[in-house]
Amino acid sequence: MTLALRQLATTAADFEAEFQRVLHWSAETDHAIEQRVAEILADVQARGDAAVLEYTARFDGLQADSVAALEITRDELKAAFDCLPAAQRDAIEFAARRVRSYHERQLQACGLSWQYRDEDGTLLGQKVTPLDRVGIYVPGGKAAYPSSVLMNAIPAQVAGVGEIVMVVPTPKGERNALVLAAAYVAGVHRAFTLGGAQAVGALAYGTATVPAVHKITGPGNAYVASAKRRVFGTVGIDMIAGPSEILVLADGSTPPDWVAMDLFSQAEHDELAQSILLCPDAGYIAQVRAEIERLLPGMPRQDVIRASLEGRGALIHTRSMEEACDISNRIAPEHLEVSSRDPHRWEPLLKHAGAIFLGAFTSESLGDYCAGPNHVLPTSGTARFSSPLGVYDFQKRSSLIEVSEAGAQVLGKVAAELAYGEGLQAHAQAAEFRLKR
Amino acid sequence: MTLALRQLATTAADFEAEFQRVLHWSAETDHAIEQRVAEILADVQARGDAAVLEYTARFDGLQADSVAALEITRDELKAAFDCLPAAQRDAIEFAARRVRSYHERQLQACGLSWQYRDEDGTLLGQKVTPLDRVGIYVPGGKAAYPSSVLMNAIPAQVAGVGEIVMVVPTPKGERNALVLAAAYVAGVHRAFTLGGAQAVGALAYGTATVPAVHKITGPGNAYVASAKRRVFGTVGIDMIAGPSEILVLADGSTPPDWVAMDLFSQAEHDELAQSILLCPDAGYIAQVRAEIERLLPGMPRQDVIRASLEGRGALIHTRSMEEACDISNRIAPEHLEVSSRDPHRWEPLLKHAGAIFLGAFTSESLGDYCAGPNHVLPTSGTARFSSPLGVYDFQKRSSLIEVSEAGAQVLGKVAAELAYGEGLQAHAQAAEFRLKR
Repeated sequence: MTLALRQLATTAADFEAEFQRVLHWSAETDHAIEQRVAEILADVQARGDAAVLEYTARFDGLQADSVAALEITRDELKAAFDCLPAAQRDAIEFAARRVRSYHERQLQACGLSWQYRDEDGTLLGQKVTPLDRVGIYVPGGKAAYPSSVLMNAIPAQVAGVGEIVMVVPTPKGERNALVLAAAYVAGVHRAFTLGGAQAVGALAYGTATVPAVHKITGPGNAYVASAKRRVFGTVGIDMIAGPSEILVLADGSTPPDWVAMDLFSQAEHDELAQSILLCPDAGYIAQVRAEIERLLPGMPRQDVIRASLEGRGALIHTRSMEEACDISNRIAPEHLEVSSRDPHRWEPLLKHAGAIFLGAFTSESLGDYCAGPNHVLPTSGTARFSSPLGVYDFQKRSSLIEVSEAGAQVLGKVAAELAYGEGLQAHAQAAEFRLKR
Repeated sequence: MTLALRQLATTAADFEAEFQRVLHWSAETDHAIEQRVAEILADVQARGDAAVLEYTARFDGLQADSVAALEITRDELKAAFDCLPAAQRDAIEFAARRVRSYHERQLQACGLSWQYRDEDGTLLGQKVTPLDRVGIYVPGGKAAYPSSVLMNAIPAQVAGVGEIVMVVPTPKGERNALVLAAAYVAGVHRAFTLGGAQAVGALAYGTATVPAVHKITGPGNAYVASAKRRVFGTVGIDMIAGPSEILVLADGSTPPDWVAMDLFSQAEHDELAQSILLCPDAGYIAQVRAEIERLLPGMPRQDVIRASLEGRGALIHTRSMEEACDISNRIAPEHLEVSSRDPHRWEPLLKHAGAIFLGAFTSESLGDYCAGPNHVLPTSGTARFSSPLGVYDFQKRSSLIEVSEAGAQVLGKVAAELAYGEGLQAHAQAAEFRLKR
């Protein structure tokens, strides 16, 4: 069965229209879901544990006498870890170590308090402190990824968050041992087998059993996304994730089967995932296409890969690498592989991407698991304005200001002038009271 | 007329209940407003300029033939600045200089790209880049504050944002010269006399005339807040602001009239604004109360101040400064004055606050206008998880990963192990293809 994988060329007359079709992605909010989520949240806020238990029984087929019975103890997390085959235990610990080490560098690079004194002796700066308590939503079922537990919990741990509370739905009570083991390794403090909007509500408002958190991170289905959007303001949230994407920018120097497999690795996530190749070399595009066709039948998830490639994938022939960089910036992909002999030549031209993978050896999958940087990345073009999940998502800043008596004489006159201009006389007088009379 | 200003003591039996009443603040979302905003946004998305023009005529009483006619040119902004009295011009420029200087320090402290190589030669880091284009919403009418223009536009400018687009409603066409002048000084690139949900929609989706931006910041009324929440995801947004708050933590060493005026300076904003004094010295509380009663009749905005103090204010007698710090952490105020002889003794105990003003000379109003730090701060307890507006709000980060051939041999085995564990075979094979065979 031939693969109906779209092939475009920037020189073609209809390129712009075809390109728009490839990019089109509508995250339409479903009004019925919104309505249902609003009801669930209101109910959880009003009735707490009782409501959480009812929804868990109804949606996850999981009966319990109390929410306390749905808590997974640290001992259970540890037991899950201890029971894994040694190779898996080692891999999780190795990955956790690398992820921790990277996020510790991040903390040093951009997460520390700073202050200075100006010439008047006035102290200015920011105090950076960790959040007290955060909630991590981990999807259950087919997308239950232990790596996501590491990627959410470790930055929180490195930031110094006091308590990390994980929720993970376990439909019909089925627990994923790798997820629990990862929670153990990543330092999750408390865990509950809860999911859906009811879990988000329990974390946002707190119940008798589930402690209220100050921020909720982690991916989820449309109900979870809608619930996160709705509790935003009561708590902080991370981004709302869309389908995963990879863009490979290739100069033709990487073995074409490597690139084919990299495209698959995004496509296998989900039929809505997007895999795009940009390359100025038509011959190389043909080689990658041939490798795709050769390798596809051997992939266990070939149906998902095929649907994703045919539905949202594209091989795009560009005039040049420079043009490929421009197009990449228009897409602002989640994952951007610069599969080039000379990746540092192109990197400065790339403005918008969640993560940039430089050189042929940097497959996106290494970054997904264990290179160190976070794999929670902005999707659907939101890399134009948002960032990978990081230590900074689990910190907050307080401005520090200490105006000296001398400073108050200078600043007070300016503040009063501006305050009177805004009709705020108490602001003005508060400044004037500090002037020497 | 006596002032019915609540006075509590932490030693009182009913303290906890009374304290909860003081804190109670419900940012209930009005369903009718949500519905109306959804319609306006959909209409602006569908009909662009035509819809924007209609809503501007209807809601702001401002007729125009085209949205282009609602644009304020840079020349007009400059003219507004040039026509101001010299004292106001100087004050705006002085404030802008200080705000810029502080945010430049912030950029250096936490807004720069960083990278390192690990022992395998693998490069890891983050590239920090400015947003391409942002929108700044500036309220019109009674809360049209030129200082807010500086506080939103200058961090964007320091971050290196390519284009800063300001929208400001001008009901019946009345423009605020100080707002336009501040926009000139702060480096706003384009400005439109638009407001409400229609302005947010125009910025988020773009119209033929208004360019689509990637993030929208700035305060607004309930319609604007609802619209920002709804376009979140299409664009980035800053926080949703609630009523302003001040908490003064006093040890009794500051002249009591200073503290009284500081409490007024928050109360005069809005009847829902909150002013709270925490102090272990009952005699000093009585002095502040006496100053409040003495000074209130002289305040031009005394009706607003009285309503705010009576509705949401409180003087709280604590057992100690330590207890006052604990209570402050429970409130997580927007503005926190440590009006103490020894502010650095208490500062380390203060975990949650938008901005901390240290010492008697640091009136909150100095910070509002010209100390340098941003005056856009988290309200309603959101300082537990969010931060002052800053340069970081106008930047985004891209992870950088360059795995060396040696690194790929180590990382590849771990990634493959974890990927097989998650049932993602293409991820595993993409890693394995990089292993030496």
